[in-house]
Amino acid sequence: MRAAVLHEFGKPLVVEDLHCEDPRAGEVRVRLAASGVCRSDLHVLHGRSPVARLPMVLGHEGAGVVEAVGSGVAGLRVGDPVVIALYGPCGACADCRAGRIERCMGETRRNNMFGLMPDGSTRLSLGGRPVHPMVGAGTLAEATVVREAQAIAIPHGVPLDLACLAGCGVTTGVGAVLNVARVAAGSSVAVIGCGGVGLNVVQGARIAGAARIVAVDTQPGKLDLASDLGATDLVRVAADEPASRAILARVPGGVDTAFEVVGHPELVREALLSTRPGGMAVMVGAPPDGAQLAFEARQLFWDRALVGTVGGGNVPQRDIPRLMELHLRGRLDFAKLVSQRLPLARVNEAFGALEQGELARTLVVP
Amino acid sequence: MRAAVLHEFGKPLVVEDLHCEDPRAGEVRVRLAASGVCRSDLHVLHGRSPVARLPMVLGHEGAGVVEAVGSGVAGLRVGDPVVIALYGPCGACADCRAGRIERCMGETRRNNMFGLMPDGSTRLSLGGRPVHPMVGAGTLAEATVVREAQAIAIPHGVPLDLACLAGCGVTTGVGAVLNVARVAAGSSVAVIGCGGVGLNVVQGARIAGAARIVAVDTQPGKLDLASDLGATDLVRVAADEPASRAILARVPGGVDTAFEVVGHPELVREALLSTRPGGMAVMVGAPPDGAQLAFEARQLFWDRALVGTVGGGNVPQRDIPRLMELHLRGRLDFAKLVSQRLPLARVNEAFGALEQGELARTLVVP
Repeated sequence: MRAAVLHEFGKPLVVEDLHCEDPRAGEVRVRLAASGVCRSDLHVLHGRSPVARLPMVLGHEGAGVVEAVGSGVAGLRVGDPVVIALYGPCGACADCRAGRIERCMGETRRNNMFGLMPDGSTRLSLGGRPVHPMVGAGTLAEATVVREAQAIAIPHGVPLDLACLAGCGVTTGVGAVLNVARVAAGSSVAVIGCGGVGLNVVQGARIAGAARIVAVDTQPGKLDLASDLGATDLVRVAADEPASRAILARVPGGVDTAFEVVGHPELVREALLSTRPGGMAVMVGAPPDGAQLAFEARQLFWDRALVGTVGGGNVPQRDIPRLMELHLRGRLDFAKLVSQRLPLARVNEAFGALEQGELARTLVVP
Repeated sequence: MRAAVLHEFGKPLVVEDLHCEDPRAGEVRVRLAASGVCRSDLHVLHGRSPVARLPMVLGHEGAGVVEAVGSGVAGLRVGDPVVIALYGPCGACADCRAGRIERCMGETRRNNMFGLMPDGSTRLSLGGRPVHPMVGAGTLAEATVVREAQAIAIPHGVPLDLACLAGCGVTTGVGAVLNVARVAAGSSVAVIGCGGVGLNVVQGARIAGAARIVAVDTQPGKLDLASDLGATDLVRVAADEPASRAILARVPGGVDTAFEVVGHPELVREALLSTRPGGMAVMVGAPPDGAQLAFEARQLFWDRALVGTVGGGNVPQRDIPRLMELHLRGRLDFAKLVSQRLPLARVNEAFGALEQGELARTLVVP
């Protein structure tokens, strides 16, 4: 089974032939149809993420077809189309049992997060040495073995090479709007960063009925996409230009909700500065490990809220089917998010494009 | 009319004989029975508050009896006992009209905040020169003239020299729990700073039914009070000791909600570090103007929320009567909050005690 493996931080990925075991009890093997490449992959590549554990198969946004099921798997059968979820709730921790599934931090989830199965093993190896799938997913590959809870069945009508985006980018962006901020119809929103996730914040805000959606980016191509997906105001900023100033010029007094979707603490501060008193800033982007966030404390004082989110507060079993439903009804666009498709052999080009920041999402098709 | 006036930042207050006009249309004059002294007064004294405008009568937490009413005042009569509210909603801005009264930032409220009546005038003067009442209240005085909306009628049974605490300290502390964090019964809470406001966060958490209430302070006397008011765990820290470490030792994994009630950005960070993933930190203390708040952005990432509040999200006309009701039913203690009573002539001693940080609340009785 071929997969894109990170052996050393900062170095290009190497497409390797890995041994992929059969699924054990409660697990399924998924033949992957496509994988998105996301900024969190880039953080792992550069050793700026706590979830890195080398050697690691990158990718955490995939979809495919179940090709083998382990014993005790009740909800999935061979041939089922599935999206690989960012996490599979453990079902056993206090949060899962209390229905706060999005906060699951059970040992199973924690192990998944660090590229391990619940028992600390992996199903992937190279020359007998274990290889870790990023966040238990490792989707930049031809196949992956995941716990049943991490593979979400979807309707047959959705093309798999689009559905994969629901694994992270779409769920995170739309979830940040619907689950975390609970954007109100008629309210005003700003979105700082219109990449693969930010464009879905724009779509989510449109779905929620926001009256003003101010999209901010340095790249005109991304702003065009934001416009197609529902942004009402497009603001192109220079890299060193404060986004808040441009947003406040459009919405005097500040927006109700501002989203930072880059993973840069300076821009989180800009998001906060863009909100009205009583408003909320949501940090959707994953900041690099160790990065400090600083702002004037008085900003917060005026009834503002600054909220973080891992993946948009999603409960995969609830939210991924909801996104598929919205897509099938024509309200959630997947196709416009795809900038280019590359074969697995050219996976490093996908990372190069991400670092350039000019494209929305690159799909890697094994 | 005697009042404690700040003429120069950092200098002692001077008790002056001011001219206090009759109330104009929509205003009432209140003969004050007592005023608390709060950290926000101290920020003004030292020129670290945006609401400072000299010369200023300090004090913003008072109660008394209506002694004169202007034309058009419908809801108050001479002889009514009232608490002076931190603000009087303007009733006219978009937020007031939409029922988000706690977010009122109408011109009337803004003028009040900077010690002015809605038309930019004041009712106080010294030798013909206007004097500004802090946040429109100026309660360290024998009397004050406020808009009707800023004087809240209370039942006759509550002693005025205790009721005054509902003007700021009690409302802010209890409001931060009930209105802002909406602490859930059975959840865990940490309170960093057990002064006049923090003790009310403790009481509020007890009223909300929190299962664990970890009180943190440097002063054993304040921790004793916290215990009396409902804290389940008392943690005395040295001034340079990280509060989060002590809290995490008591509640492994972190509390559901942590409150910072000092107004020190370092402690806001400690509050955030004390919360569980998915938890909330509430900045209740008013930070000095310009103070920076900094923390590792990843802290926020794990579904945490950091929330600010001006005065605990209170709607005075709703919340002050609610607090009186709780007090009359024996669930909310006012008397324990009072450390000492001083006459107006000794007002500077009250500020000295506040800077020492050893006492809960000093009441100044004119």
